[in-house]
Amino acid sequence: MPVDLNSDMGESYGVYSLGADEEILRWVTSANVACGWHGGDPQVMRRTVQQAKALGVRVGAHPSYPDLLGFGRRPMQITRQEARDYMLYQIGALRAFCEALGARLQHVKPHGAIYNVAVKDRELSLGIAEGVREAGGDLILVGLPGSELVRAGQEVGVRVAREAFGDRAYNEDGTLVSRKLPGSLITDPEAVAERVMGLVRGTVNAITGSSIRLEADTVCLHGDTPGAGTIARTVRQRLEAAGIRPTPMGEFVR
Amino acid sequence: MPVDLNSDMGESYGVYSLGADEEILRWVTSANVACGWHGGDPQVMRRTVQQAKALGVRVGAHPSYPDLLGFGRRPMQITRQEARDYMLYQIGALRAFCEALGARLQHVKPHGAIYNVAVKDRELSLGIAEGVREAGGDLILVGLPGSELVRAGQEVGVRVAREAFGDRAYNEDGTLVSRKLPGSLITDPEAVAERVMGLVRGTVNAITGSSIRLEADTVCLHGDTPGAGTIARTVRQRLEAAGIRPTPMGEFVR
Amino acid sequence: MPVDLNSDMGESYGVYSLGADEEILRWVTSANVACGWHGGDPQVMRRTVQQAKALGVRVGAHPSYPDLLGFGRRPMQITRQEARDYMLYQIGALRAFCEALGARLQHVKPHGAIYNVAVKDRELSLGIAEGVREAGGDLILVGLPGSELVRAGQEVGVRVAREAFGDRAYNEDGTLVSRKLPGSLITDPEAVAERVMGLVRGTVNAITGSSIRLEADTVCLHGDTPGAGTIARTVRQRLEAAGIRPTPMGEFVR
Amino acid sequence: MPVDLNSDMGESYGVYSLGADEEILRWVTSANVACGWHGGDPQVMRRTVQQAKALGVRVGAHPSYPDLLGFGRRPMQITRQEARDYMLYQIGALRAFCEALGARLQHVKPHGAIYNVAVKDRELSLGIAEGVREAGGDLILVGLPGSELVRAGQEVGVRVAREAFGDRAYNEDGTLVSRKLPGSLITDPEAVAERVMGLVRGTVNAITGSSIRLEADTVCLHGDTPGAGTIARTVRQRLEAAGIRPTPMGEFVR
Repeated sequence: MPVDLNSDMGESYGVYSLGADEEILRWVTSANVACGWHGGDPQVMRRTVQQAKALGVRVGAHPSYPDLLGFGRRPMQITRQEARDYMLYQIGALRAFCEALGARLQHVKPHGAIYNVAVKDRELSLGIAEGVREAGGDLILVGLPGSELVRAGQEVGVRVAREAFGDRAYNEDGTLVSRKLPGSLITDPEAVAERVMGLVRGTVNAITGSSIRLEADTVCLHGDTPGAGTIARTVRQRLEAAGIRPTPMGEFVR
Repeated sequence: MPVDLNSDMGESYGVYSLGADEEILRWVTSANVACGWHGGDPQVMRRTVQQAKALGVRVGAHPSYPDLLGFGRRPMQITRQEARDYMLYQIGALRAFCEALGARLQHVKPHGAIYNVAVKDRELSLGIAEGVREAGGDLILVGLPGSELVRAGQEVGVRVAREAFGDRAYNEDGTLVSRKLPGSLITDPEAVAERVMGLVRGTVNAITGSSIRLEADTVCLHGDTPGAGTIARTVRQRLEAAGIRPTPMGEFVR
Repeated sequence: MPVDLNSDMGESYGVYSLGADEEILRWVTSANVACGWHGGDPQVMRRTVQQAKALGVRVGAHPSYPDLLGFGRRPMQITRQEARDYMLYQIGALRAFCEALGARLQHVKPHGAIYNVAVKDRELSLGIAEGVREAGGDLILVGLPGSELVRAGQEVGVRVAREAFGDRAYNEDGTLVSRKLPGSLITDPEAVAERVMGLVRGTVNAITGSSIRLEADTVCLHGDTPGAGTIARTVRQRLEAAGIRPTPMGEFVR
Repeated sequence: MPVDLNSDMGESYGVYSLGADEEILRWVTSANVACGWHGGDPQVMRRTVQQAKALGVRVGAHPSYPDLLGFGRRPMQITRQEARDYMLYQIGALRAFCEALGARLQHVKPHGAIYNVAVKDRELSLGIAEGVREAGGDLILVGLPGSELVRAGQEVGVRVAREAFGDRAYNEDGTLVSRKLPGSLITDPEAVAERVMGLVRGTVNAITGSSIRLEADTVCLHGDTPGAGTIARTVRQRLEAAGIRPTPMGEFVR
């Protein structure tokens, strides 16, 4: 059972620097590159695609609500058609850099609030999925297992990758424990690596202690937390020590 | 000697409406579609590409400085690399709509101040031309005859179309008379049509009265002036009455 | 029982023109001036304050979510503190123009989605009201009668004006009939004037036909609908014919 | 001869953090607070004004071109009227936070490119100065000695403070050595302190070695360079050791 490791990248903007892209890129197989709407700008996009390509990491689009001030983390009410058009715009912008630099766009992972709202919002999810399908190129849509987003992707006929989080606690129903609750975030590198090892086999311990099933094609490693580089390295090394070589989702997701 | 008729389109934004796109589209052969940086938004872009395609009008990108507040009409000092990346971003965003709707992106005509500054700014022009070349797809770069932009396009190896203006007065050296001077703008439809007839044969009367040579591949018809629709219709009908059928630049520019 | 007539103004942006400000300003007593976040820009703000002052119309701030693309009409999830700071920023910006031009800022009427969301959202309403109080100057906060916004205003200790709509249908509980339903909008000038006459006496016919009580200090006349000028004139003339002279809210709201 | 120490502050934006505000605030007497157009947002503005006030540092506005992407560092061509309105807007927005928090706005120091362009551009300088005058409150306009900006301030009748830079090399004519040239930036804390000691007495060594006269009311300490905190502390301590107590410009500039 193959697994992809992904991380959000290219979220710097103008003079503002964010994340530890270069460090994280060494350990992941897929990079979700911001497209200018919550972070990222044309120069950052070029640089990030270049760095990913140089390290053999596949590139995906990381589109967002139009909310630079809020870093795309605030739910906004947009229509299905707006979602579709917003996706297409951002995917197109990033793809131009990919094509110019000889990289092939592999996937689309919505960013922040639009990703979270799409978990339960069918109309929004359909808009996102339609935008991805319209963009062509057999792009993979990344979403939470069991989410409306994954369902919408299947419905409109795009490839879908289910995403798990090695550093987030889960409820028994497979949803994420709210970041506002204690214990929602796991920061110990070994503990994260241990959880990722379980995720590869399709199980994870819920916050209640019981083991739940959770099928995931790709595991997200956050790049903006302190120690992110160490966590990413630990996860990667632990996987490889167990004979599991992370594989870009484009090679196994159908 | 074939000629293309182009016009700027899709410059509405959100609730704000601008131009007489639907009317003008009936008479031109190439539409320069705004990409969201000086006007246009993803929904306007989709609608404009759809309308152009439905009427058999070819689509080009109309990228700009990042200046919505100033409608891209204010010179800004940007680097060659910024120009390159800004072009690539905007071209990519628009091209995603073209591809989704089955239209092929034909050309790139920089908008407003960046077009004007590029007339004399070699570094900026090289950045623009490099962005167009990087975007691939054999795009045509549109610029003023004799400008640094046209020269840069030739230098970096992209197809170039030279643009003339039927409604603008010319100096004897082939430059445009400043909009601030009296007589710089021609608004009488018959007079514009007459000038376009001349431009097709490679000549135009300068503001001094003497006839000058001016080779152009495409003639711009402004869509945001009062009576723009009438002017466009008059020009088109006059050309056709003389047996000249306007042709999209993509079919004859090499 | 005095009544104020208000209208949204100054929502043009850069080259984009919106509304019939000059016409409407002749009939209202209070102008809600956009502050640049959903429409309006510094030059439009200056011009609008100037026009209002010249006609003796009082000026209020019309702050919004940060959403120019959506014209402030899309609900966004922001915190109480963000609401407070966003109000303060926009009020301050507009007040600088008022003070420079010798006008006194009279009131604050939140725009579009933030106004609507505040009807039922206590935290958001408190943030808005706190921003208004912090801005000082004894500003009046305008909200829907019975809304959380009006309640929050009273709670934090700012003057509050309750607003009614002459051109919108009401449910029996005093809430507005959704714009998506038939009959929600009244466009006949005489019918609007008739309803405003009722509102002045504290009653309005609900969409069901029964008369309900609705106490309002100010009646909104929309400026962006076709025939807005005629409606505004008809309302004003009808009021004056009945001996009711519209009065700026600042003169009677406590 | 009194001297003020100023530094640019509050240039973080949303999730993006910039500068070492808290550290620098301990050593300066005046803070130039970004107003949201090149950096800063309403929450950052509140926090920065609060911090400055808590440490007894006077607050000034640090308005910019509308260019968040370029951090206000790129020359843009704007009209005198635009400059005036842009100043008024940004000053008003920041002043609302000052007034809400019990701080009095002391000065206005244009940021980045607009400051630099104003050195030689009379029309732009007049627009800026007019905006400052219109804002009222006896605000001080900060500019380079001998610049058009200082001249414009005097002409329109606002108080003016002349600014020197302790960490920048000067040409013999009192202009700054371009940042692109070697030796233009001085980073050794002791060397900077030494230069500030000279500036207090009205002299500085030009890059050629000869001593030139340079009258300044305020010395800028950059906050965004590595070691900025150490430089600020060293300068302050050196001044105090010599019996010179930095004083807010508002107390001595007329």
